[in-house]
Amino acid sequence: MATGHSRPDPAKPRIARTMGKARIFTEAMPFIKEYRGSTVVIKYGGSAMVDETLRSTFADDVAMLHLVGIKPIIVHGGGPHISKAMARQGLEPTWVDGLRVTDEATMSVVQSTLAGEINPDIVRLVNAHGSVAAGVNGLDANLFVADQLDERLGFVGSVREVNPTLVSNLVGQGYVPVVAPLARGVDGHPYNLNADTAAAALAAALGATKLVYLTDVEGLYRTLGDEDSLISKITVAGLEELVESGAVSDGMLPKLRSCAEAMRSGVTMAHILDGRVQHALLLEIFTPEGIGTMVVGEGA
Amino acid sequence: MATGHSRPDPAKPRIARTMGKARIFTEAMPFIKEYRGSTVVIKYGGSAMVDETLRSTFADDVAMLHLVGIKPIIVHGGGPHISKAMARQGLEPTWVDGLRVTDEATMSVVQSTLAGEINPDIVRLVNAHGSVAAGVNGLDANLFVADQLDERLGFVGSVREVNPTLVSNLVGQGYVPVVAPLARGVDGHPYNLNADTAAAALAAALGATKLVYLTDVEGLYRTLGDEDSLISKITVAGLEELVESGAVSDGMLPKLRSCAEAMRSGVTMAHILDGRVQHALLLEIFTPEGIGTMVVGEGA
Amino acid sequence: MATGHSRPDPAKPRIARTMGKARIFTEAMPFIKEYRGSTVVIKYGGSAMVDETLRSTFADDVAMLHLVGIKPIIVHGGGPHISKAMARQGLEPTWVDGLRVTDEATMSVVQSTLAGEINPDIVRLVNAHGSVAAGVNGLDANLFVADQLDERLGFVGSVREVNPTLVSNLVGQGYVPVVAPLARGVDGHPYNLNADTAAAALAAALGATKLVYLTDVEGLYRTLGDEDSLISKITVAGLEELVESGAVSDGMLPKLRSCAEAMRSGVTMAHILDGRVQHALLLEIFTPEGIGTMVVGEGA
Amino acid sequence: MATGHSRPDPAKPRIARTMGKARIFTEAMPFIKEYRGSTVVIKYGGSAMVDETLRSTFADDVAMLHLVGIKPIIVHGGGPHISKAMARQGLEPTWVDGLRVTDEATMSVVQSTLAGEINPDIVRLVNAHGSVAAGVNGLDANLFVADQLDERLGFVGSVREVNPTLVSNLVGQGYVPVVAPLARGVDGHPYNLNADTAAAALAAALGATKLVYLTDVEGLYRTLGDEDSLISKITVAGLEELVESGAVSDGMLPKLRSCAEAMRSGVTMAHILDGRVQHALLLEIFTPEGIGTMVVGEGA
Amino acid sequence: MATGHSRPDPAKPRIARTMGKARIFTEAMPFIKEYRGSTVVIKYGGSAMVDETLRSTFADDVAMLHLVGIKPIIVHGGGPHISKAMARQGLEPTWVDGLRVTDEATMSVVQSTLAGEINPDIVRLVNAHGSVAAGVNGLDANLFVADQLDERLGFVGSVREVNPTLVSNLVGQGYVPVVAPLARGVDGHPYNLNADTAAAALAAALGATKLVYLTDVEGLYRTLGDEDSLISKITVAGLEELVESGAVSDGMLPKLRSCAEAMRSGVTMAHILDGRVQHALLLEIFTPEGIGTMVVGEGA
Amino acid sequence: MATGHSRPDPAKPRIARTMGKARIFTEAMPFIKEYRGSTVVIKYGGSAMVDETLRSTFADDVAMLHLVGIKPIIVHGGGPHISKAMARQGLEPTWVDGLRVTDEATMSVVQSTLAGEINPDIVRLVNAHGSVAAGVNGLDANLFVADQLDERLGFVGSVREVNPTLVSNLVGQGYVPVVAPLARGVDGHPYNLNADTAAAALAAALGATKLVYLTDVEGLYRTLGDEDSLISKITVAGLEELVESGAVSDGMLPKLRSCAEAMRSGVTMAHILDGRVQHALLLEIFTPEGIGTMVVGEGA
Repeated sequence: MATGHSRPDPAKPRIARTMGKARIFTEAMPFIKEYRGSTVVIKYGGSAMVDETLRSTFADDVAMLHLVGIKPIIVHGGGPHISKAMARQGLEPTWVDGLRVTDEATMSVVQSTLAGEINPDIVRLVNAHGSVAAGVNGLDANLFVADQLDERLGFVGSVREVNPTLVSNLVGQGYVPVVAPLARGVDGHPYNLNADTAAAALAAALGATKLVYLTDVEGLYRTLGDEDSLISKITVAGLEELVESGAVSDGMLPKLRSCAEAMRSGVTMAHILDGRVQHALLLEIFTPEGIGTMVVGEGA
Repeated sequence: MATGHSRPDPAKPRIARTMGKARIFTEAMPFIKEYRGSTVVIKYGGSAMVDETLRSTFADDVAMLHLVGIKPIIVHGGGPHISKAMARQGLEPTWVDGLRVTDEATMSVVQSTLAGEINPDIVRLVNAHGSVAAGVNGLDANLFVADQLDERLGFVGSVREVNPTLVSNLVGQGYVPVVAPLARGVDGHPYNLNADTAAAALAAALGATKLVYLTDVEGLYRTLGDEDSLISKITVAGLEELVESGAVSDGMLPKLRSCAEAMRSGVTMAHILDGRVQHALLLEIFTPEGIGTMVVGEGA
Repeated sequence: MATGHSRPDPAKPRIARTMGKARIFTEAMPFIKEYRGSTVVIKYGGSAMVDETLRSTFADDVAMLHLVGIKPIIVHGGGPHISKAMARQGLEPTWVDGLRVTDEATMSVVQSTLAGEINPDIVRLVNAHGSVAAGVNGLDANLFVADQLDERLGFVGSVREVNPTLVSNLVGQGYVPVVAPLARGVDGHPYNLNADTAAAALAAALGATKLVYLTDVEGLYRTLGDEDSLISKITVAGLEELVESGAVSDGMLPKLRSCAEAMRSGVTMAHILDGRVQHALLLEIFTPEGIGTMVVGEGA
Repeated sequence: MATGHSRPDPAKPRIARTMGKARIFTEAMPFIKEYRGSTVVIKYGGSAMVDETLRSTFADDVAMLHLVGIKPIIVHGGGPHISKAMARQGLEPTWVDGLRVTDEATMSVVQSTLAGEINPDIVRLVNAHGSVAAGVNGLDANLFVADQLDERLGFVGSVREVNPTLVSNLVGQGYVPVVAPLARGVDGHPYNLNADTAAAALAAALGATKLVYLTDVEGLYRTLGDEDSLISKITVAGLEELVESGAVSDGMLPKLRSCAEAMRSGVTMAHILDGRVQHALLLEIFTPEGIGTMVVGEGA
Repeated sequence: MATGHSRPDPAKPRIARTMGKARIFTEAMPFIKEYRGSTVVIKYGGSAMVDETLRSTFADDVAMLHLVGIKPIIVHGGGPHISKAMARQGLEPTWVDGLRVTDEATMSVVQSTLAGEINPDIVRLVNAHGSVAAGVNGLDANLFVADQLDERLGFVGSVREVNPTLVSNLVGQGYVPVVAPLARGVDGHPYNLNADTAAAALAAALGATKLVYLTDVEGLYRTLGDEDSLISKITVAGLEELVESGAVSDGMLPKLRSCAEAMRSGVTMAHILDGRVQHALLLEIFTPEGIGTMVVGEGA
Repeated sequence: MATGHSRPDPAKPRIARTMGKARIFTEAMPFIKEYRGSTVVIKYGGSAMVDETLRSTFADDVAMLHLVGIKPIIVHGGGPHISKAMARQGLEPTWVDGLRVTDEATMSVVQSTLAGEINPDIVRLVNAHGSVAAGVNGLDANLFVADQLDERLGFVGSVREVNPTLVSNLVGQGYVPVVAPLARGVDGHPYNLNADTAAAALAAALGATKLVYLTDVEGLYRTLGDEDSLISKITVAGLEELVESGAVSDGMLPKLRSCAEAMRSGVTMAHILDGRVQHALLLEIFTPEGIGTMVVGEGA
């Protein structure tokens, strides 16, 4: 429609700059609209958990998601911290098939490191960036109940049962739950869970919309070692093929297996992100181009 | 904290670009946080109501505000449309002190133009941009009850009573109300209201947080005619002084008087924006620099 | 039971008169009991919409229904007003198969007449008689979404989708919705709907108990033109037969077809009433004899 | 407004008759509107409780009030029934100052007559006329707690405390409570209450809008014995004067005193009606002329 | 675990005594846990209803159950009281097949005794022991609707329909309902119900967890007359066999038949207790050994 | 009252034993009644936290309180565990005025011991005894915000602010919160709180009814060292006098001071109990004699 009004000149720098900002907001609109009210379970680990700048931008991202009505839940790991704490106490880690053997003394270190060191630190971090976090560990309200995974590994659990009410109540009250991957064994003893697995099981039990892994790689590659083969989007069936094909590094395998299982149990979408990029979370969720690998259901 | 991880290089263009986006989101965070859940009454008029591009970006902005939890209410005017419709019917407008004399025939045109032409058009516009609008006119549920402003003007009303329940119910159900400034006269007859005044009265009755005027000027000027004297922020007392001082154009006077009155009745903040700038609404509310004149309470 | 009390003499005129009143109330009781809490969609048109006395008694009836807990919804037409408004603007109506061809200019007149002239007038009328009405048109909250009925007719719609939440919310809050039969086309353009059809579609979407047509005839006749063959009660199957038989005037056909369809979709009962009788609505619903033709389901 | 439509002829008998009906409904409208949602406590006794026709029209009236949204509560007496039951058991009533001396044996008859004979009968009566009644006696949920009124009278109580929650819950669930005027003494023993007093105390405790006495007189008279001096409307102050003046029969005194007290405690209006007139209740509440004496607050 | 703390000596009498108390509480824990929130219908009669000490300990038990979150409902009989009241009025009872013939005069005594004598007495009893009771009879809100059981018996009913809403509402509001086994006949007349049957029908209609009969025997015996054959636990099938076998006294038959029927309709468990033992109710429900006969479903 | 029924013989051992049980339940009734729905904050520490039998009976008591509708909240300390953990890591504790100097390294041990070792252990303990516990530390949802108590002590906090919403929400959802006495410093750093003080501050913030200290002494003594001077009941003023008098051991002082302060802030009652007695909690709350020292308000 033609109008006779003299319009402010969009070539002026101030007008141009602000219009640029507006474009980014409106670009994010469909994503905010789609995910508002959704539950997003974030496996938090790697560099994003140790580098001070990345910790800070991660907490900003969580606060931003929370603000626009998305419900973030953080599940953290803590392997390197546990190894350090064991060293401090003169305990020598031993491994079976790449998994840490967890005897009574080790389990005690695992528990105090996850629930007593890392978890409160993340709670403080989130609280300092504008949301209100509440720490939870898998023993609280019997969140995770575990069987023993393998006799040789001791107190390493496989998830038998998830009781997510405590976590969903916290979410409903506006808190950001921060979850340490401990479990109550069916024998009453505390058990250690793999954090990737725990995150996936929690996401499935909550019927989460998204499951996000913050890792120290750019995403998945079609061909291991070929940076140009980064996969931007893959179906869960494609993911399962990739896992079968052997084109996945050993460290990635449990992550991808639990991810596929969670999606088979009702989680809508998963993301494998490079946690070394500042604001990785926000960029993946709020920009059309994304930054990592997105796993979607068959029909999507 | 030093980490041995190789970080992705922020100098790479893709990384740099996405980081820029993230910065804009986080810059908006404190504003989203502050205004989430707030009611914002927007007087919609001028170029923003006639230019197709501006109409479209305005509707985007309303949708974006709505998405992040702000509650927008649109009050529209329609002077130029009314004049055109009168012309189409061969009616000659007459004026007293700059106000349109509204006899029976004119009132009939006013009503059918506001409630039957402009209001449904804005409803369609908003509905096409992702929110769900519901049109309301001041007769519905006796939203506005009016006295006669001046015998010489006929059916021109001054607001006597506002019954905002219908509007606040619509807001509570997630609709964007679009309000035509008609009123039920105490004599039962329909009356015409000044849209600026109606918007201010509604904002006051709802206890709105913000009252926004989309105009065809950049904002208020300290010195009339001096573009460099644009006022970025002013207190309501300052605004009242400015009105008294005579440094305000005649067209602006009713807007500023009703604005000051609304703030004296509990509205927290008012904005006079240049509706000719695309996304004026979003930029004023979500960026630290803003783009127009903000009126704040004494202590702010 | 014999009692020794001296009873007031029912032959005294004052006692007799008041007892007569009481009899009428108690006669109405079973109907009030049956329909309390029910939704009644009333197609309002014809003489009842133009004669001042009938308008007033109609508004009284709506208020009375509302008072005793029935939920009235008014859907109005406006053919004669539209023709007059077109004439005022020098537009010549053209017709195809008895339906008004609605080009862009005509649609503009239709919209401003229905939503800007008739609808607010009915709202004012109801508000003046003790209920609180809220005007709605089919564009609000996408109440009616339409396909094009016939290319030759332009912006004449057939109902594709009804989103009755806005209307049922208004009812739930104690308002009387007054609905103008506009629709949002799937192409985004406003469309005109036949008011009889719109009323029937809304009744079906709301699961209304009753659908009432106020017309300018006494009801349905078994034999067209024979006043003594007025039908007091007919099943929906009987109605469909009547329609097939040709014993129905052309003007009645769309009314009866949409009526039958609404009943097939769950509306319990329909009434075709003579809107020229004062209080037709009240008398049909609250007296055992009724005044028009009642259409009931198979088993009733 | 002139319309060309041929109107049905209102001189035809059928049309005339139905219009008469409609007039009576619309005449009742303002009263229904005013009292909808109000609580009305009805002291039920005298002929209206023993004559079969009056019992039936009373139950119809209660059902009609209930239907249009008024909340009736029935408090009944039972003096004559108690005297008969005592006679059946060979108990001789004795009196002090016109009040029945209630020893242990008499109290037992009082309780079984009120709670076991009259109360269930009224419940059945109301249930047979379309509402759902629930019997309550003053011992239930400690509805009435009593002190001894006078040592010489034995188990005759004066109301010390009313716990109306049980009754208001029943009302809230749509039942019509039927209340027998028993009380729990502070000594734990059952006590007998005067039904007029109990009704007034319950009305006050519930904040009822109306307190209605069904009696065997036409109403109050300005001059005792002069039928033409029937009072149609009196203020509570006027009522108190009348009581002081001695122009009130002894039987009326406790009724009027408790009535004045209830109105001083917040009941809006009281009515003294002739229960010997069929539909007395309905006619008093729904017709402008009423049939008895209405007591109003000072300013009304 | 060894601790250096000097422990208080558990052999000291005070410590020993208090520890004994604690053991009893903890022994009750699993039962409280299991039945908290459950509805328990108690048929109250026999000695427990006439002996003052047993009445008092019964009321204590009801209060204790109520306190820990169990929902007791009391259904009482009244045969001996009715016989006494008939005698007082010179009425001679007649019997057919062991059932009282209930003519009009007898029914009147039954009603006033159950609803006017026994029911209010139990209400007062419970109210004096810390809970708040509300009396109900089967006519209230049409709780029980009855057919005539046998023409020869007159107004003796068999349960045709149970409308338990009034009772479940009272429970939901924290009252203890006390129910008199009257019924509204389908002919509108009051009817007398067998209290055992009424209790069972109410338990079934409410989906109660437990149905408890307080009787004047120790429980069920495998061999009639052999005290050592007291049955502690039996399945409903076993109960039905026992009834068929003839090893049950005539007085017990209707109780056991209605009990079996209630369990077939969803009641989980029934108890036949010796109401002559103080606190029989509490001991049966809160101690592992119990004191009477428990009837359980097949699989329990 | 004489009854003809043959009563079971209360001298029989089985009857005697069960009656004894019943007596204990009914003795507890008034206490259950009084405290049902009340919040009880329990400072858990000393022998009751380390001896296996006492841990188990403590958890039973918590479950029993919970079952009967009392809302227990556990606040634990952990001095000895912290000292042991410091020793394991070769850290030498230093003390100022009897308080542990808490530098960065010590604080890290404090946090991982309280939140990572003791808290999850208590959660598991409670979960194994029939309630569902949820661990919380003072950083979660900013439960405790602290100032530095004394520069010389490092990260030892004094409570500045309590945000009890998270805890009261958990209680409202039926969980037993187990609280570790950490705090967020106003500087963002984690701080250590004295557990007695934290329990008192939380009780005050929640408006708890009771504050219970489980200690390793029998209670308060009038004369220090004289076992016969054990105080059974004392007013808060009496307690304050006792504190001033010097008759209190140094270890008790902070406990008693925070206790007095909590009662001045609205806590109704405090108890100082001997946690070395099995079921100390249950016995104090549910028996008339109690076992420790009860502190009551002035008027109690």
